[in-house]
Amino acid sequence: MSVIYDRVALIGLGLIASSMFWAMKRGGLAKEVVGYARSAETRDTAREIGLCDRVCDSIAETVEGADLIVLCVPVGVMADVAAEMAPHLKTGATVTDVGSVKVDVIQKVGPHLPEGVHFVPAHPLAGTEHSGPRSGFAELFDNRWLLIVPVAGSDRAAVGRLRDLWEAMGANVDEMDAEHHDLVVAVTSHAPHLIAYTMVGVADDLRRVTDSEVIKYSAGGFRDFTRIAASDPTMWRDVFLTNKEATLEVLGRFTEELFALQRAIRQGDGEHLHAYFTRTRAIRRGIIEAGQDTDAPDFGRSGRKS
Amino acid sequence: MSVIYDRVALIGLGLIASSMFWAMKRGGLAKEVVGYARSAETRDTAREIGLCDRVCDSIAETVEGADLIVLCVPVGVMADVAAEMAPHLKTGATVTDVGSVKVDVIQKVGPHLPEGVHFVPAHPLAGTEHSGPRSGFAELFDNRWLLIVPVAGSDRAAVGRLRDLWEAMGANVDEMDAEHHDLVVAVTSHAPHLIAYTMVGVADDLRRVTDSEVIKYSAGGFRDFTRIAASDPTMWRDVFLTNKEATLEVLGRFTEELFALQRAIRQGDGEHLHAYFTRTRAIRRGIIEAGQDTDAPDFGRSGRKS
Repeated sequence: MSVIYDRVALIGLGLIASSMFWAMKRGGLAKEVVGYARSAETRDTAREIGLCDRVCDSIAETVEGADLIVLCVPVGVMADVAAEMAPHLKTGATVTDVGSVKVDVIQKVGPHLPEGVHFVPAHPLAGTEHSGPRSGFAELFDNRWLLIVPVAGSDRAAVGRLRDLWEAMGANVDEMDAEHHDLVVAVTSHAPHLIAYTMVGVADDLRRVTDSEVIKYSAGGFRDFTRIAASDPTMWRDVFLTNKEATLEVLGRFTEELFALQRAIRQGDGEHLHAYFTRTRAIRRGIIEAGQDTDAPDFGRSGRKS
Repeated sequence: MSVIYDRVALIGLGLIASSMFWAMKRGGLAKEVVGYARSAETRDTAREIGLCDRVCDSIAETVEGADLIVLCVPVGVMADVAAEMAPHLKTGATVTDVGSVKVDVIQKVGPHLPEGVHFVPAHPLAGTEHSGPRSGFAELFDNRWLLIVPVAGSDRAAVGRLRDLWEAMGANVDEMDAEHHDLVVAVTSHAPHLIAYTMVGVADDLRRVTDSEVIKYSAGGFRDFTRIAASDPTMWRDVFLTNKEATLEVLGRFTEELFALQRAIRQGDGEHLHAYFTRTRAIRRGIIEAGQDTDAPDFGRSGRKS
């Protein structure tokens, strides 16, 4: 592999940024990676574990001379960060982000960026329920999708170079327009997260089922919901507030469908249920064929016992 | 390990029965395990892969002389199977089941069993999204819970012996009464399954998001839903039809809560969302501490790449 950017600046040092750092190190993709986090504690942790070649104490210092600046902060604060860094950006630099929402980020970040700086929004479809500077690992993006969402007039050379970086970090790259992106992730990620959060909250509320029982007997499906519902609260609050319309639209459809299935249960309509469950099974097969999950009978869990 | 039952009869040869067979073989827990499945194709497969020491072509032949009979069929057909096998049961035999619902099974199976036969209902809280005779593996029950739900007057020696078998197959065993069982699993398993089925169905319906996109970009949360929603349709239809009240009660609570979160999104109430998501995170920590899941940063998935 070879160097793609001389200097990369990571703003925000959570799961995605730390995984990007380790993936860039693995591939030798940048001469220097500089990092910044608003919290002094996070900066100390980063220095302690060798996360970033240099950790800076201000945004201005971090972005100075950088060829690529990656916004890895919750989408709700991206506009403020963009405003703060704008005067310090090098002409010809590329600014990108890793936010889960694109229409809102483009509207709020774009206007702050000066002439001569390329803005190429992006979104890696990868994550875990962990967060913070210690949660990253080099393999997070391997065989996962990275969606580039170019803005009007995005420089094609800048887009191509960012694509090269993500591919070298292991990702498959697609391009998509911002509105379509926000609807697709509302279906595949945002609505499922809200639903998982809700179900876990309900389980916690049902006092007749004690907490310890819910936890003890979680293997039957609930366990996967708790994993999703353990994701970073700040990040997800911002996702729902900024991808409001698409998320509410999908949740509206979800509620309609859930009511239809509840009615089928109440009325004892086994045919309706069976046909529905048979249809959803086919989607799973598609995901396995697309290489986005494993078909191991125990989902790879037994490995941890040995 | 030592033999716990001389002869075990498995009725139905799907995921649970085939895993029980391999777990009993692993531990040398039965002298002979006899199996039966209604479908000739399943019986042929079982003979081909060595599933069961002997595969019989009738229920009568299968249960004859058996010390333990395990009903591993969908809960909707357990009553019919019980009626068919009843005249052929050995006095002193124990009949158990692995159904996900207990009140309904006890009401429908119990009356068919003759005097002198012990009925000890049970439910292993373990599974995968796979089904059929080829889906089993010996480790399925390792460190998972098995709930024994004794009926009025269950013979304590028969309960103890069944507990010994499950513990020797790797499970942790608890006892619970039937109504409480059905509510607990409605929370930890039945409602989550219906919700996952619903979300996957909605994704399939949203024509503006093409199938291929939903599948391709599923890593962000949706993927886990599809795994749950790939479970056996017949089994799950019967679960919802027979644990109707508890499931509808939990779904009712879920819908209320989901509406409250949807309203918070619509109104831009970030504090409500953040507080809710912070609370659900704690439950996840409890599950990891209880040893019912792994805390590996990538959930053990990276292993499959090597």
